[in-house]
Amino acid sequence: MSSPFPHVAILGAGLIGSSILRASKAHFPGTRLSVYDVSPDVRARLRTLGLADYVADTAQAAVMEAALVILCLPVGGYAAAVAEIAPHLKAGAILSDVGSVKAQVIAHIAPLLPEHVVFVPAHPVAGTENSGPDAGFASLFANRWCILTPQADTPAQSIAAVTSFWEGLGANVEAMDANHHDLVLAVTSHVPHLIAYTIVGTASDLEGVTNSEVIKFSAGGFRDFTRIAASDPTMWRDVFLHNRSAVLEILQRLTEDITILQRAIRWGEGDKLFDLFTRTRAIRRQVIDAGQDTAASDFGRPHSEG
Amino acid sequence: MSSPFPHVAILGAGLIGSSILRASKAHFPGTRLSVYDVSPDVRARLRTLGLADYVADTAQAAVMEAALVILCLPVGGYAAAVAEIAPHLKAGAILSDVGSVKAQVIAHIAPLLPEHVVFVPAHPVAGTENSGPDAGFASLFANRWCILTPQADTPAQSIAAVTSFWEGLGANVEAMDANHHDLVLAVTSHVPHLIAYTIVGTASDLEGVTNSEVIKFSAGGFRDFTRIAASDPTMWRDVFLHNRSAVLEILQRLTEDITILQRAIRWGEGDKLFDLFTRTRAIRRQVIDAGQDTAASDFGRPHSEG
Repeated sequence: MSSPFPHVAILGAGLIGSSILRASKAHFPGTRLSVYDVSPDVRARLRTLGLADYVADTAQAAVMEAALVILCLPVGGYAAAVAEIAPHLKAGAILSDVGSVKAQVIAHIAPLLPEHVVFVPAHPVAGTENSGPDAGFASLFANRWCILTPQADTPAQSIAAVTSFWEGLGANVEAMDANHHDLVLAVTSHVPHLIAYTIVGTASDLEGVTNSEVIKFSAGGFRDFTRIAASDPTMWRDVFLHNRSAVLEILQRLTEDITILQRAIRWGEGDKLFDLFTRTRAIRRQVIDAGQDTAASDFGRPHSEG
Repeated sequence: MSSPFPHVAILGAGLIGSSILRASKAHFPGTRLSVYDVSPDVRARLRTLGLADYVADTAQAAVMEAALVILCLPVGGYAAAVAEIAPHLKAGAILSDVGSVKAQVIAHIAPLLPEHVVFVPAHPVAGTENSGPDAGFASLFANRWCILTPQADTPAQSIAAVTSFWEGLGANVEAMDANHHDLVLAVTSHVPHLIAYTIVGTASDLEGVTNSEVIKFSAGGFRDFTRIAASDPTMWRDVFLHNRSAVLEILQRLTEDITILQRAIRWGEGDKLFDLFTRTRAIRRQVIDAGQDTAASDFGRPHSEG
């Protein structure tokens, strides 16, 4: 597939930004790649890794010739970054992003852009618990979904170009309304992360059980939550602050459902527990059938030979 | 290592029972292995797999010559199984188990046993989301912890023999009080499972988001919860019914902590979120350092090459 963009600029080279660079290099060898990261250490590392044609020392220098600029920062940093680059974007350039929140981002960013730049918000639903330029890899987006949330007046050809970029990196692309995106992600990503962070915090605060015990005996389920609760703190703080109403809505429903189960346990209502546990098992099967997880036990975790 | 038991009988050949058979065959080749499962299909499958020297058609026949009998059933089935086998256990035999709940199990089982049988409750903290005799594997217990919860009058030599059996299968062994075990496991296993079941249920009940969307976009975190929520429904129903007070205590603390975060999100208190998210990241590191999980991204899940 040939690239829809001769020059792509990445702002922020963490897990996602560096994975886009790696995947672009692999799939679009003719595309010029420039990158800027606010951290001098990260910029030095990017030069060592050789992930881009040009590691810029300013955001302005990274973006000024780019046909596609992708914000790969925590969403709380978008407004400052866009204010900085807006005067330097080429006429006809497309600005996109990878943020896990959409409606508030659009409301904040759109007014900062000049008339001659089109904003096509995007969110590749992919990631790991690791952060930084060394954590990325070229196949991160393969067979994952990338959601676009264009507005009513976004030109069809801009949407098509961003779609074809993500398809080129191996992703499946779907467009939806920004508010709907934020609700879907609150369920499938934001609230699961919040609960994982909470349960790991609750466990480490217990006075009757030591942290050393929690860690030793984590193979009973807890260790899966620690993976999610190891995700980047800044990124996730910003997600919760920017998707407040959807997260609070889903959290409210979840705590109602926890209360129902709490009561079922208190009153010994085994049938209610059994019915739920049977229903959720079927959903795991559908996630695997949809190619969104491996069928191997324990996600295919390595098991040492005893 | 030579086996402390010339003949081991397994009652129930699911994930754990069949893994004990496989690991025993690998590590204690001189030990005679007998097994009984209530399901005729499972018994037929055990014969095909060749996992034991003797696949019995009654529990009585499986246990009558065994030096160690291990209950590998859901804990709700213990009392009936023990009532059935008690009159047929050899003098000097040890009865053990693998259940995730201990205090209530001891209270129910101990009175059913004859004087000449010693009960040494055990719990290997290991497992996967899969069930049945085909799901087991020999290395399941390698470098995992097995917790023993002997009582004050349990003979030291019986504890030592069971310890040496589990060490022979590759596990680390620790003894603790049954009530403390139940609290530790409520934190590290039972409540994480209950929350995973709940969140998968909550997601599948939302009227504004389709199940197909939840499944497609599950790579944002939700898919990890579906793995845990695919665990055996009967086993887990019994766990919650038999460890009621510890589970309710931990659930109460968890919902308090969720409420605090809910309020922090509502009031935009980013620092509170950031502090928790930073603290939990350190716990992931300790789980990995303790050898209880892999450091590879996404648990080392296979990533298709794009």
